[in-house]
Amino acid sequence: MAIQHPYLLFLGDAPDQLAAKTAQGVAHWRPDWCLGQLRLEGCQTDLGLTDMSLEEGAAAGAKTLVIGVANRGGVFSEKWISVLEKALLLGYDLAAGLHNRLADVAVLKAAAEQHGRRLFDVRHPDREFEVANGRKRSGKRLLAVGTDCSVGKMYATLAIEKEMRARGMKADFRATGQTGILIAGSGVSIDAVVADFISGAVEYLSPANSADHWDIIEGQGSLFHASYAGVSLGLLHGAQADALVLCHEPTRRHMRGLPDYRLPDLRHCMEANLAAARLTNPEAEFVGIAVNTSQMDKAEVADYLGRLEGEYGLPTVDPFATGVAPIVDRLQ
Amino acid sequence: MAIQHPYLLFLGDAPDQLAAKTAQGVAHWRPDWCLGQLRLEGCQTDLGLTDMSLEEGAAAGAKTLVIGVANRGGVFSEKWISVLEKALLLGYDLAAGLHNRLADVAVLKAAAEQHGRRLFDVRHPDREFEVANGRKRSGKRLLAVGTDCSVGKMYATLAIEKEMRARGMKADFRATGQTGILIAGSGVSIDAVVADFISGAVEYLSPANSADHWDIIEGQGSLFHASYAGVSLGLLHGAQADALVLCHEPTRRHMRGLPDYRLPDLRHCMEANLAAARLTNPEAEFVGIAVNTSQMDKAEVADYLGRLEGEYGLPTVDPFATGVAPIVDRLQ
Repeated sequence: MAIQHPYLLFLGDAPDQLAAKTAQGVAHWRPDWCLGQLRLEGCQTDLGLTDMSLEEGAAAGAKTLVIGVANRGGVFSEKWISVLEKALLLGYDLAAGLHNRLADVAVLKAAAEQHGRRLFDVRHPDREFEVANGRKRSGKRLLAVGTDCSVGKMYATLAIEKEMRARGMKADFRATGQTGILIAGSGVSIDAVVADFISGAVEYLSPANSADHWDIIEGQGSLFHASYAGVSLGLLHGAQADALVLCHEPTRRHMRGLPDYRLPDLRHCMEANLAAARLTNPEAEFVGIAVNTSQMDKAEVADYLGRLEGEYGLPTVDPFATGVAPIVDRLQ
Repeated sequence: MAIQHPYLLFLGDAPDQLAAKTAQGVAHWRPDWCLGQLRLEGCQTDLGLTDMSLEEGAAAGAKTLVIGVANRGGVFSEKWISVLEKALLLGYDLAAGLHNRLADVAVLKAAAEQHGRRLFDVRHPDREFEVANGRKRSGKRLLAVGTDCSVGKMYATLAIEKEMRARGMKADFRATGQTGILIAGSGVSIDAVVADFISGAVEYLSPANSADHWDIIEGQGSLFHASYAGVSLGLLHGAQADALVLCHEPTRRHMRGLPDYRLPDLRHCMEANLAAARLTNPEAEFVGIAVNTSQMDKAEVADYLGRLEGEYGLPTVDPFATGVAPIVDRLQ
């Protein structure tokens, strides 16, 4: 699976900014790949990109129409389908990270075959994986782990990739979720893999590489999330991470979606992740803490980050507000 | 998925005893359900059951033909297919735990539809699951965990169910693998579930029950197996186990399939399982150790079991050789 860029970002009739957060992530992290946005009547969001029709995007060189917006009620409306079908006719591939599949829409499947175009349903793995073999691979790997789901693992890892590349280091972000895959152009939606193959899929995603190359692997879930911890552990074992970054959101009152579950203590969370990581890489170490401070009182942020830094002896940053340079310093 | 019994066990043209180990497990644990065996020309195994033709089995009341034997090269031969098709015609359902599916054989699918019979491909979940909610369920649960794969978890849990039932306790074995499902008549092949739903599938498999009822849940894999630990952790969280039994095979030189990985120390393995189990059930405790001593020098077995019993303060048994009474004593 390698999605061709540049992209035209399809925002459809998004009712608000949140509905288009996938497109927003792609535009933020891959500005060079995003030639413009395509908005339908009633669209309530704007990424600040040039508005383009399908024809204008094609003329500008766009290769893939990326559906970066949630579909209402999880169905493809007639309005959407007619636009997507026309895109295939004009030579675009389609890529979407939705629960339902483009390939399940008969008219799109037929049009893609007729015009020799590809449909990327990035939430659904398009291949089978091997069982993990646990053998040490060359190259270096960093994995983001979390106290909870949705605490900024994707943001942190993309920021680390960007910082490393800016310094001339060899680094590739390895995507494990749908937005990350659209940003990277490839990857594996790891929570959609059959359970037996979680670690094997991560070994595939992050193959042997040159000794000075870093795979920066997007984490998923948390070892302490009662719904998804199996995914997180399989990811940790398959990654064979040399370096771990702990991601945390300090205002979260309970684990996401689980009102009865409190967040783990940071030290306890780090110890559990380290113990698990060392099964497949005895050299695994934490190299930093990435805090999503967006919901915090701004006056408290600096103190909080300083306190964690002192307590754990690790560079502690907000990737969005302060960047990840101190973490990359440590890896360089 | 509820497979009707009694069964006729199809042994096909099994080249040896090992090829029929699924059928052997079913015959051992559910003798009352197994009316007979059906062997084709060249079959090199014998379960000691009455040999029956399809017609004889049907006349004796068999409801399901259980394919309890591996198919050579993972394909259904013409010889097999003609027998299986005839079984559907005679009123049997079919159940198999193979990698490839009965339902993918067009002639069997058509015959099942025509005759109103069912095809159970127990290795492949036949429903979708919810994400785990982590809410405490009524009733009690025991889960087998292991130092490795294939160390006797299914045997130990079936022996505990049998012992509990013999004492008049309410107990149900909950199957998580294909042989277990054929033995129980229902269950979920947990390693074939989509990764996001591992724990949710276990919550489904082991629903709320009366306060004095025990679900005896078959374990899978090991937290220390670099290929499958994600499955084991999801299973542990979904089970919300009150009682854990550690299963171990002392002569194993490395983790199954992973020559570079040593088995974990027993205490370390128990601590890791307990810590993980307590996320969803803070009351979780180990209640026994089940050792598969089949490969040990017989003269050393008693000493070895006694030593573990002293070291961990837990009833330590070989479920096959000495039974599980001391573990059930502790639970009663």
